[in-house]
Amino acid sequence: MTTRQPLAIEVKPVEKGSASYETTRAAILTELASKIPKECLLPQEIIANPPLDVTDIPRTCGILSQHELDITEKYDAVALVQATSTGTLSAVDVATAFCKRAAIAHQLSCCLTDYFVEEALERAKYLDEYLKTHGRPVGPLHGCPISVKEHLPLKGHYSSWGFLVTRSFSEEDSLMVRILRDAGAIFYVKTNQPQAIMHLECTGFHGRTLNPSNISLSSGGSSGGEAALVALRGSVLGIGTDIGGSIRGPAGFCGIYGFKATAYTLPCKDFIPGGFAAELNVLASTGPMASSLRDAELFVNVIKAGKPHLEDPRVLPFPWTGFDTKIDLPLKIGIMTHDGQIVPQPPVLQALKWAEQQLSGVTNVTTKPFMPYKAATAMSSIRKAYWPDSGLPDIRACEATGEPWHPLSDWIIKDVKGERERTGSEVNELRFARDTYRSEFAMDWNRQDVDFVLCPVFVGPASAHDTAFYWNYTALFNYVDYPGVVFPTPVRAGKEKEEYPAEFSTPLGPEDEHVRQMWRESNFENAPINLQLVARKHHDNELFGALAILKDALKLQ
Amino acid sequence: MTTRQPLAIEVKPVEKGSASYETTRAAILTELASKIPKECLLPQEIIANPPLDVTDIPRTCGILSQHELDITEKYDAVALVQATSTGTLSAVDVATAFCKRAAIAHQLSCCLTDYFVEEALERAKYLDEYLKTHGRPVGPLHGCPISVKEHLPLKGHYSSWGFLVTRSFSEEDSLMVRILRDAGAIFYVKTNQPQAIMHLECTGFHGRTLNPSNISLSSGGSSGGEAALVALRGSVLGIGTDIGGSIRGPAGFCGIYGFKATAYTLPCKDFIPGGFAAELNVLASTGPMASSLRDAELFVNVIKAGKPHLEDPRVLPFPWTGFDTKIDLPLKIGIMTHDGQIVPQPPVLQALKWAEQQLSGVTNVTTKPFMPYKAATAMSSIRKAYWPDSGLPDIRACEATGEPWHPLSDWIIKDVKGERERTGSEVNELRFARDTYRSEFAMDWNRQDVDFVLCPVFVGPASAHDTAFYWNYTALFNYVDYPGVVFPTPVRAGKEKEEYPAEFSTPLGPEDEHVRQMWRESNFENAPINLQLVARKHHDNELFGALAILKDALKLQ
Repeated sequence: MTTRQPLAIEVKPVEKGSASYETTRAAILTELASKIPKECLLPQEIIANPPLDVTDIPRTCGILSQHELDITEKYDAVALVQATSTGTLSAVDVATAFCKRAAIAHQLSCCLTDYFVEEALERAKYLDEYLKTHGRPVGPLHGCPISVKEHLPLKGHYSSWGFLVTRSFSEEDSLMVRILRDAGAIFYVKTNQPQAIMHLECTGFHGRTLNPSNISLSSGGSSGGEAALVALRGSVLGIGTDIGGSIRGPAGFCGIYGFKATAYTLPCKDFIPGGFAAELNVLASTGPMASSLRDAELFVNVIKAGKPHLEDPRVLPFPWTGFDTKIDLPLKIGIMTHDGQIVPQPPVLQALKWAEQQLSGVTNVTTKPFMPYKAATAMSSIRKAYWPDSGLPDIRACEATGEPWHPLSDWIIKDVKGERERTGSEVNELRFARDTYRSEFAMDWNRQDVDFVLCPVFVGPASAHDTAFYWNYTALFNYVDYPGVVFPTPVRAGKEKEEYPAEFSTPLGPEDEHVRQMWRESNFENAPINLQLVARKHHDNELFGALAILKDALKLQ
Repeated sequence: MTTRQPLAIEVKPVEKGSASYETTRAAILTELASKIPKECLLPQEIIANPPLDVTDIPRTCGILSQHELDITEKYDAVALVQATSTGTLSAVDVATAFCKRAAIAHQLSCCLTDYFVEEALERAKYLDEYLKTHGRPVGPLHGCPISVKEHLPLKGHYSSWGFLVTRSFSEEDSLMVRILRDAGAIFYVKTNQPQAIMHLECTGFHGRTLNPSNISLSSGGSSGGEAALVALRGSVLGIGTDIGGSIRGPAGFCGIYGFKATAYTLPCKDFIPGGFAAELNVLASTGPMASSLRDAELFVNVIKAGKPHLEDPRVLPFPWTGFDTKIDLPLKIGIMTHDGQIVPQPPVLQALKWAEQQLSGVTNVTTKPFMPYKAATAMSSIRKAYWPDSGLPDIRACEATGEPWHPLSDWIIKDVKGERERTGSEVNELRFARDTYRSEFAMDWNRQDVDFVLCPVFVGPASAHDTAFYWNYTALFNYVDYPGVVFPTPVRAGKEKEEYPAEFSTPLGPEDEHVRQMWRESNFENAPINLQLVARKHHDNELFGALAILKDALKLQ
């Protein structure tokens, strides 16, 4: 049978692989489990009979002291750095608190792939010493714990690109990790991601990450470990990557903040050894997953100040002005209630309505309905653009160790499965289609005369396990490479199922019908509802400038 | 036999194609010839027995009035626009003068593919009327004649991507052309380019463009028609494109100014219908070919002010500050005498020495030797990266009309000829190699601690016809996508052949030996020698900021 997740709650087992694959997998999981300190282990009855919503457990389980609860709950990264840089909090106390809480979070959600408390504490001691000796912090992240998605090389730890056979030891930090380290970050965990790093959920050889607000739902993916960990406040700030929604989806599923920058705003150097064929036409991006909007901005500030473009010239060298960016007023915001393909499920419609009402009173803000240009074309094109290699390297990667092919892996390559690789000319055709669409999309955006678009993050709240099929509300903005910030709203899915509003009583098509069926069949109780604000390509500064204006109205932290 | 170029001097016929190809070609050439006004025809004896240097002929042939000579010789674009915007010169007089001189230039160098004096004069009349009626110019290029490379769609004219079969009528302007038109430009000619737009010379179905300073040499390519036309002052400002040296090479061969921007600084939208497979890994760029540096800056200013990013979101939206860009002082300039592969021929070494001496006295400027990182690797990689389709579409394009395969076409695809197209995975490997090299190159540039690099444009002066084999000094900077400005120096190749200096008496390898052999065998008399200043990727503003500082020392106009 498939290897059971040691320690952590398991709602639905992941696919079973060959015997040798399961042996290797069990060894990896056991090693991780052995690193979790005994004093952080939750009672077996919680693991065996967990409540649907596990977010209160870190606070109620009795493992964390009041000081540790305060540290992990009352600070965001900006506040933490302020405290550790002035000696109000010691880095050791901060590291201890987050290590303990991350251990608890892992047991509740299976969010980690690595855990290294001793290394973290040693680093924290160094930082405290440094502050005492020099009277100043190491840098703008002095003493801030940062969680790191598994595939990002972090010196002295393992990374993989989502298949067991690709797991390898990292001798060096990747560029972004090094900049964060130089700025004073403390690393203590790596976080889960799905097979191929290409699902909007999080199931792979490290297991399945659960949604802390409702464990019958997914944490989202691919940066799902980050999202669950931050939602449980086992981290306040982590790094995700996003080529179809992999930052924004899980941030939305778990109710935290996430920012996918325009590609090459932030460095992705060394994130995928050998490169990723999808990036011939759809660039991956990276960005923060955070407990507050200002943490997301701090993250970008620190990375840009590290001048990554000098080492990775793909990164744009243009200055980061963030919240201080001057924006032409009035802000013209398009409200995209749906994309013409799939009406989002009722709680998402409710959140959009809430946001529109919140914005209606704001000076210098105008809203109007927005409909994206030919969203169906974008979705069908990006699904092809992801696979110039027809997924053959992925299939071979599974075969190499007897790794099972996960259901959502099947879903993502269904358009190309069994086909030969594309030729150079065909890859060029995909590129031309992309550039043509991008230009038409941009001109249509101009015609609709908006500067920013407020829209759903996903077709509903977090998906029930193995059902995050429709990437429409995130992948569209990867196809055009527009930056987006997702943020929580006060809306959550209720216990009772709301009906679709009368104006949306008719499905827009078979995909919409499928989404309505999933709405009827699954339990979404308590799932957070996030929204997404999107700006034009390379208008990342303007996006944060706009958010600074909208912050109070949208109750952003 | 091959179709003789009607009207124009022909030093060496181009390759002969099938009978039907030659018939079509003859019709196109005859049609162009028929558009040249009778009063602009040069005496037959000049065409039959031309001097080596034809640059004086426009002045001495008696076709142009003194006023027309003044207009075409005493103004650059900045000065012309000043004059036409204030009524000092009429747009009609300017258009007339440049149309006449372009007609002469074509007969001397075979630089044109289209000529439309009536359309130009109609436009000029409109501009003069507009100024009279409104008391202000149409825009910042009011009345400025702009020449356009053949493959750039210009409404109402033909364009091709370098094969007869691809020649098609353009119903609309390409984006950049439209911005120039809206700014007040007058279009009057399209200019020659080579087969596949992929030679560093200029031979295709429109014929072979000659170097006005020495017609036994090439004008360079692929924007060779532009270069010859500007050198003969049949244009002061034109548009080139560059994926391996196609702006900088011909600008250098003909002794004019050229700027290849970092890719996506300026828009290339619609320049190649269906896209160009090479661009999967080596992006083409575009930029001005000009009679002065300040014209090049004016060009960029106008394009950026047109906000091309709103229509083509590939274009970066960041502000253009040009000459006003603040630069960290001292300017640290690396002098790259050679690339470790091929020592440039003696006049180029002489120009480098001249420049170094000129810079030695300048406040806030330091120079040091610079050696590019593994230039041989870059050259071998870019030659593969150009052809993910193994050149098969090009071969098919020739077969479609019986077009002959030109000698330099053979040269450029020799590494892939006869091979199948690359697979998606293989194209991804090329991409990964590129990004790895780019990062290593950037870090090596940092280690050498320079901000800008001064280097050759080519392995020698302009090449003898059909010998521009080695793209080392331009293609390297396409492979890393660094911006470069080429500018004339006072140095020209002499009648007597200089020896290689003692320090370079030993060839660096077989390619260097081949270049030395060509130095011995060809007549380079009077060929201009340009140099190139290169900045880091996306440091286009900084490049112009630096040039503003170096302008006087390097005697730039």
